[in-house]
Amino acid sequence: MSERVREILGWYGSDNPGTLTNLARILNHGRLAGTGRLVILPVDQGFEHGPARSFAINPAGYDPRYHFQLAIESGCSAYAAPLGFLEAGAREFAGEVPLILKVNDHDALHDEKDPTQALTGSIADALRLGCAGIGFTIYPGSTQRLEMYQQIRAYAEEAKRSGLVVIIWSYPRGSSISKAGETGIDVCGYAAHLAAQLGAHIIKVKVPTAHVEQESARKVYEKEQIPVASLSDRIRHVVQCCFDGRRVVIFSGGAAGGDAEVLEEIRGIHAGGGFGSIIGRNAFQRKKAHALELLASIMNVYAGKAVPLRASA
Amino acid sequence: MSERVREILGWYGSDNPGTLTNLARILNHGRLAGTGRLVILPVDQGFEHGPARSFAINPAGYDPRYHFQLAIESGCSAYAAPLGFLEAGAREFAGEVPLILKVNDHDALHDEKDPTQALTGSIADALRLGCAGIGFTIYPGSTQRLEMYQQIRAYAEEAKRSGLVVIIWSYPRGSSISKAGETGIDVCGYAAHLAAQLGAHIIKVKVPTAHVEQESARKVYEKEQIPVASLSDRIRHVVQCCFDGRRVVIFSGGAAGGDAEVLEEIRGIHAGGGFGSIIGRNAFQRKKAHALELLASIMNVYAGKAVPLRASA
Amino acid sequence: MSERVREILGWYGSDNPGTLTNLARILNHGRLAGTGRLVILPVDQGFEHGPARSFAINPAGYDPRYHFQLAIESGCSAYAAPLGFLEAGAREFAGEVPLILKVNDHDALHDEKDPTQALTGSIADALRLGCAGIGFTIYPGSTQRLEMYQQIRAYAEEAKRSGLVVIIWSYPRGSSISKAGETGIDVCGYAAHLAAQLGAHIIKVKVPTAHVEQESARKVYEKEQIPVASLSDRIRHVVQCCFDGRRVVIFSGGAAGGDAEVLEEIRGIHAGGGFGSIIGRNAFQRKKAHALELLASIMNVYAGKAVPLRASA
Amino acid sequence: MSERVREILGWYGSDNPGTLTNLARILNHGRLAGTGRLVILPVDQGFEHGPARSFAINPAGYDPRYHFQLAIESGCSAYAAPLGFLEAGAREFAGEVPLILKVNDHDALHDEKDPTQALTGSIADALRLGCAGIGFTIYPGSTQRLEMYQQIRAYAEEAKRSGLVVIIWSYPRGSSISKAGETGIDVCGYAAHLAAQLGAHIIKVKVPTAHVEQESARKVYEKEQIPVASLSDRIRHVVQCCFDGRRVVIFSGGAAGGDAEVLEEIRGIHAGGGFGSIIGRNAFQRKKAHALELLASIMNVYAGKAVPLRASA
Amino acid sequence: MSERVREILGWYGSDNPGTLTNLARILNHGRLAGTGRLVILPVDQGFEHGPARSFAINPAGYDPRYHFQLAIESGCSAYAAPLGFLEAGAREFAGEVPLILKVNDHDALHDEKDPTQALTGSIADALRLGCAGIGFTIYPGSTQRLEMYQQIRAYAEEAKRSGLVVIIWSYPRGSSISKAGETGIDVCGYAAHLAAQLGAHIIKVKVPTAHVEQESARKVYEKEQIPVASLSDRIRHVVQCCFDGRRVVIFSGGAAGGDAEVLEEIRGIHAGGGFGSIIGRNAFQRKKAHALELLASIMNVYAGKAVPLRASA
Repeated sequence: MSERVREILGWYGSDNPGTLTNLARILNHGRLAGTGRLVILPVDQGFEHGPARSFAINPAGYDPRYHFQLAIESGCSAYAAPLGFLEAGAREFAGEVPLILKVNDHDALHDEKDPTQALTGSIADALRLGCAGIGFTIYPGSTQRLEMYQQIRAYAEEAKRSGLVVIIWSYPRGSSISKAGETGIDVCGYAAHLAAQLGAHIIKVKVPTAHVEQESARKVYEKEQIPVASLSDRIRHVVQCCFDGRRVVIFSGGAAGGDAEVLEEIRGIHAGGGFGSIIGRNAFQRKKAHALELLASIMNVYAGKAVPLRASA
Repeated sequence: MSERVREILGWYGSDNPGTLTNLARILNHGRLAGTGRLVILPVDQGFEHGPARSFAINPAGYDPRYHFQLAIESGCSAYAAPLGFLEAGAREFAGEVPLILKVNDHDALHDEKDPTQALTGSIADALRLGCAGIGFTIYPGSTQRLEMYQQIRAYAEEAKRSGLVVIIWSYPRGSSISKAGETGIDVCGYAAHLAAQLGAHIIKVKVPTAHVEQESARKVYEKEQIPVASLSDRIRHVVQCCFDGRRVVIFSGGAAGGDAEVLEEIRGIHAGGGFGSIIGRNAFQRKKAHALELLASIMNVYAGKAVPLRASA
Repeated sequence: MSERVREILGWYGSDNPGTLTNLARILNHGRLAGTGRLVILPVDQGFEHGPARSFAINPAGYDPRYHFQLAIESGCSAYAAPLGFLEAGAREFAGEVPLILKVNDHDALHDEKDPTQALTGSIADALRLGCAGIGFTIYPGSTQRLEMYQQIRAYAEEAKRSGLVVIIWSYPRGSSISKAGETGIDVCGYAAHLAAQLGAHIIKVKVPTAHVEQESARKVYEKEQIPVASLSDRIRHVVQCCFDGRRVVIFSGGAAGGDAEVLEEIRGIHAGGGFGSIIGRNAFQRKKAHALELLASIMNVYAGKAVPLRASA
Repeated sequence: MSERVREILGWYGSDNPGTLTNLARILNHGRLAGTGRLVILPVDQGFEHGPARSFAINPAGYDPRYHFQLAIESGCSAYAAPLGFLEAGAREFAGEVPLILKVNDHDALHDEKDPTQALTGSIADALRLGCAGIGFTIYPGSTQRLEMYQQIRAYAEEAKRSGLVVIIWSYPRGSSISKAGETGIDVCGYAAHLAAQLGAHIIKVKVPTAHVEQESARKVYEKEQIPVASLSDRIRHVVQCCFDGRRVVIFSGGAAGGDAEVLEEIRGIHAGGGFGSIIGRNAFQRKKAHALELLASIMNVYAGKAVPLRASA
Repeated sequence: MSERVREILGWYGSDNPGTLTNLARILNHGRLAGTGRLVILPVDQGFEHGPARSFAINPAGYDPRYHFQLAIESGCSAYAAPLGFLEAGAREFAGEVPLILKVNDHDALHDEKDPTQALTGSIADALRLGCAGIGFTIYPGSTQRLEMYQQIRAYAEEAKRSGLVVIIWSYPRGSSISKAGETGIDVCGYAAHLAAQLGAHIIKVKVPTAHVEQESARKVYEKEQIPVASLSDRIRHVVQCCFDGRRVVIFSGGAAGGDAEVLEEIRGIHAGGGFGSIIGRNAFQRKKAHALELLASIMNVYAGKAVPLRASA
């Protein structure tokens, strides 16, 4: 056990050894094992956006086994997916990569201004599939958020009792937040803090912009001169919002982009003290060789190793 | 056990032997036993459309025993019906055909733009009636869909624990989907994928058209040149959307049509790699002899046997 | 045990011996014992319409013991009432007449376009009061009907496990059904079929008229030339809609009317193969002697005995 | 045990000995012990109207012990209050007066046209506090009434199983009832009957006026010439509506009034055969000596003793 | 055990020794131990207002350990916070200060006219974290208040059974209360009384103003000449509303203010017989040395010790 992982585990003094064991499994798996950084492969886009929009560009991804293989070969810290995708590979790849069961999901066949998600998996499902943890999305800002907080409360209580790790995807959304506000630094920091207060072990948020959404927050950001100009500033602020760095917070890779762009962002996250990334479409929507190369470059950044400016020419 | 059935069972690595046993029972029953193809007789139209609209044309169908007999004599893989219809024959025909308890239903005495269904049966009901599995309808696109996903999640968890097979009827519907969109290829593929992600062992969808409903999907279908012109193309795409063919997907027979029409469609499904059909009105709304003849022809297509152009002159 | 009762019990092959025993108790009690016909006395009008509207005309009915006595002396097959009325006599009249606990009710102090009922009794209540079965109202056509179907599903599952008989009052009502439609033959047949599919052992509907409410149904009634002109035609059709006569269906007596009128209707129900009647206001709103006379005449019709044209001059 | 109390207990043949014991405790406590009449002190006005409006006029009432003492010293049959007030004295006054836990309450910080109440106590609370029974308010006429009926159903089932007495406060209210209608004789009789049908052992209603609210009821009151002109007529009718006098029905004292007024009303209730009163504000909003004097006069009326026209000059 | 603490414990005669033990722990901890007064440090502002608005002014507060240390070093009676903040220090500071788990919370990413809170912690959480009690917010005046009362009822029942102390934050709010009304003396007294009736051991309200909000209350305040002119008058009235002083009621410190202002208010609370304060932003938003100094001054007021006019020049 590296010193850094031991230190991180030390932040979770209220969790039982079962949960610490699973958290350690994630932190000690793959290329970033022992570094205290992590990269997770999430594949819930088939549910969230539809199969064709997710997998047609790289049809290997229609097969659920592909993503297990990608997570394993690339040395990701964990693989996260909804019930069906995990059921379709959990036996074949048992023990080869820590699994995260995404226990709530939303689809794109109807649009809501104030969305919520459906509970699509349970703690019992996570346990029977051999998962190390569960993933749960909340939408702070939605009129339905309080109900979502209550759902994750109940799920987290049972997960922690069962020795599982709790990861909260905190995505601000809803009728009282502007599009820009969804990634505004104040909203992003607040969303990350809410996830931490709700008892998340690992928090996932979007990469924040310098936009400040809420008037009441703007006054404070200006008066206290909180630095938000550079990406690393903003990452540092979000890390601070997560119990002054005592909760693991990682950042989503977002929509598919070019390698250089992606790596540039990773460098900013790394510089700001972010704990890692969750890379979905930028992984499985590339051909496998390319995806492996890009993921290796990303992990190199987090590992603090030299990395060429672009993963792939 | 045929190689093909063994292969199919292999896709369900997260299920217990009880569920595999029941899945094998369905795949090894009737004229298509061992082929990996299946034809199911569903009779929930009395509930869904009313008794006269369903059975007046062939009044033998008012008697619940008729449908058991039809399913048995025609060599269907299974018979699916709501609680009352199954209760009315389960003892008399015990062990003669795999039964599927349709555990939710909707009636036509009120119309909703965004429908849901009532839970009308339970896992305990399915077990006491000796069923091999349960059938559950979801309406992706309805504002009530998330609640339906949560219901099937709970039902599926209990069904799987109890060794039952889970079949999801995935019927897109609701205020944000056009009439054409309900069978559009993008929506149909998405609906099938959702059912798979929700943990269905067998997925039932409508036969898709070449219509593409969602703007965000159209871009992908065009850019990636996904073939959707012919029926077999579309079936192939839907099969792909079901975990690249690693989940059994079957297609509904739709409203009553002529024999030639019906068989033409079956050939398309077969050619596209569809696993089979669920044939209700085109079976029980024909006189028995005619229905047996048509079902035999349909099963011959799936069995890959020569079949005359029209089942009945 | 008469052959006819044995035959009827044979239709319920999925029920346990406990439920068959209670069904036999009802079919073997009173003047119609063994005939396979039944007349039930229901007294929930105090709850549904108010005490004065129900009992002022014959004030003996304010006393709950009166209805037990009326049911016993007239030789009714069973007595059905809400919790309070049954609690007020169940010990005194224990074992003298089969009791049906009406487990949901609605009052007239507020009107709804799309009504539902309150659950006012439980299976545990029915068991502790020594009941043979439960009665449950559904309102097909109401926007709240799906919730009602879910309630009866849960109640029926528990009732059947506990050896009780399930009687469904199926009363079409709601914003999408016209006043005439509530008793239209198509709607009535559909409502009866829904009750059967929901697992009712005994179904209670209103006496249908020749009105056809739904456009989609009208086409079928005309095309298939379903006879609905005479009352006995319509009764025969409703019986057919109840699993081709393999579920017991009885008809409500409706608002108070003259003896001749009432008996005329009973003859129609009998001629059409209806299994019996549920006679409330036409029983307890007459003076006792008159009520006993009318009920005797009604039962004579069902028993196939000669009966004078009018019960009472 | 007096003959009258034995007779009353005989009406509750479906209750277990535990409940009869507690009912006997109430009927055998205080100045009216053994008479079959009862006067209950209820103090939920702090919750319902606020503390200052309830207690400022006689500040001794801010102290929860005051009401225990008042109930004990005046010889009331029982003391009814919400959770907090009972918790604050149940140990100190254990065994000195039967307690009724008011298990639902409503406050005046928000007004609703169709009100409901919050569940604020449980059967377990009533048991741990040594209560003889529970009190539950329903609002017949409110759109939320069906939900309230379901709540009391569940509470009553558990209370009866646990040997507690069930008292229903039946207060018509809501958008479809006029202000006058809330105490109209038809509505009041109906509300009392509903409480009886819901399984109440003791029913509490407001003192009815001669107003008839519902058109459908008016016809019957006129045709059957139900006497409602005098208060004792109306009380007699309400008693009749409560299972022809076989359920205990008591009347609320209403807003604070003069002694003469109060006693006049009590005489009417007594003359009409009402079982007693529930006297709140007219008790605790008077100075203690005055309250004791008035309560003694009230109880004297119920005990059939001579009583001066005015309790206090 | 001081006489005063023993006296206070005596008010809670319906609680078990477990709850009394935890109440004694709070009353016997810190600088005010044994005085019957208490000062609690609450830190839920990160959840309620966001992390930057709460902690940027004194960034040490981003670290959850800071607040434990502040509560311990200042000698506060207890430390109250949401799940995440307590989990992050409960092991490290186990046994050093009584903990209160705030079990419901609300965030500022959406505004509601009639707010509620999400349940974010459970009794099981409170027990596994070694807490002495739970904190629960209600919003009297909100249309959602009845649901909140039901939630605290269930929580309080379980908490009391488990030996925990129940603290209710009673904050009037909602569409039928004006901004001024939220702290109006009538509304504040009512809100405090509601909390007491709901079974709170400790009640927390805002410092009341002389404003009277409700017309029905104004008449009483004027007629009975309830003194509300000075702060100590109003505090005395609120204490009276809490069962005539037999329930512990404390007052919130409100938004950050100058030391002199804060202390002036504390003197008023003390003079009026208030049991103490809950001081959040005025504690953790000052630098630690300054906060310790102010808290010491506040506690000196409550302890009845001489205290300079301003805590800090």
